Amino acid sequence: MTAPAQPSRWKKLGELPHAATRIFAVVRAIYRHPLREKERDFFVINAPDWVNVVALTPDGRLVLVRQFRYGIDDFSLEIPGGVIDAGEDPVAAGLRELREETGYVGTRVRLLGSVHPNPAMQSNRCHLVLVEDARREAALAWDEDEELETLTRPVEEVYALAAGGGITHALVLDALLLFRPHWERLRGGVV
Amino acid sequence: MTAPAQPSRWKKLGELPHAATRIFAVVRAIYRHPLREKERDFFVINAPDWVNVVALTPDGRLVLVRQFRYGIDDFSLEIPGGVIDAGEDPVAAGLRELREETGYVGTRVRLLGSVHPNPAMQSNRCHLVLVEDARREAALAWDEDEELETLTRPVEEVYALAAGGGITHALVLDALLLFRPHWERLRGGVV
Repeated sequence: MTAPAQPSRWKKLGELPHAATRIFAVVRAIYRHPLREKERDFFVINAPDWVNVVALTPDGRLVLVRQFRYGIDDFSLEIPGGVIDAGEDPVAAGLRELREETGYVGTRVRLLGSVHPNPAMQSNRCHLVLVEDARREAALAWDEDEELETLTRPVEEVYALAAGGGITHALVLDALLLFRPHWERLRGGVV
Repeated sequence: MTAPAQPSRWKKLGELPHAATRIFAVVRAIYRHPLREKERDFFVINAPDWVNVVALTPDGRLVLVRQFRYGIDDFSLEIPGGVIDAGEDPVAAGLRELREETGYVGTRVRLLGSVHPNPAMQSNRCHLVLVEDARREAALAWDEDEELETLTRPVEEVYALAAGGGITHALVLDALLLFRPHWERLRGGVV
């Protein structure tokens, strides 16, 4: 049960390409342990940053999208989101994805926080954005192969869905966790 | 702004290997759209299921681990967890990972829920397990290259860390979201 006081910071020596796809790349990252002088390689998935959007309507509902997801070979109930373009601001990307996927636009916008989808093997981040006063006013602009059902549900019903297994997307649940304190503040104004 | 009433369920025709690593495989999944009669391939990451453990001590603290993570090339503050062995029960795997990584064991154990790390491109699930009455009583059994600092913090301090960006691991934050209603019930007994 002896443990070092602090885990060591491995030194990254470089990374080698391992596999490429349209949406992410797999690299072999070469690391050296500073004390043990030992080299090891670890596989890392590199992808652009992502954004997920909590869009709150004036009557206290959240905008949800339901779509078929190839990763799980099934439908998934989520909040809108997508891939951030190179150089694009996360909040701007959130507004863009919300508008393109659902036609909703909003006025007050803020970053709720940024998370790492998987620090063990994935380098990118997912930014979580809150859009208040969301209203359906724009035209849809779906990517090729995108088919979405847009729906809205009262905020508390969304939290109940999350608690009961009706929403299982890890990054969507993160957005709900970080939205919670804002909702405690906002709910007085909208309900 | 016209949208189909329901998005279609694509039919999976099969998957082809694309890249292999020690911890996950990348496949090219071939799908056909049922109405458009169009075939498309999508890259999917297959990995074993994972488990993350919310371990609550008798004095109302959570067990945390701090370790260097190769994916983000930095340290990360997390709850214990790891890869579920083939055929292993998620709750048993949670107890095992908790014990191996931190030396903590517990009595009352339950599944808080199961999430999809990324339904868009990843097939596996992460199971979130609650262990109550956690006490440090066992010997550590780290995997090769594992170096962990184990610490405990009061539950509310952990939620404050999560809200403030001190915990960024998406699947850890999911566990905190799903633990919240249990904590509301348990806090009377431990604080």
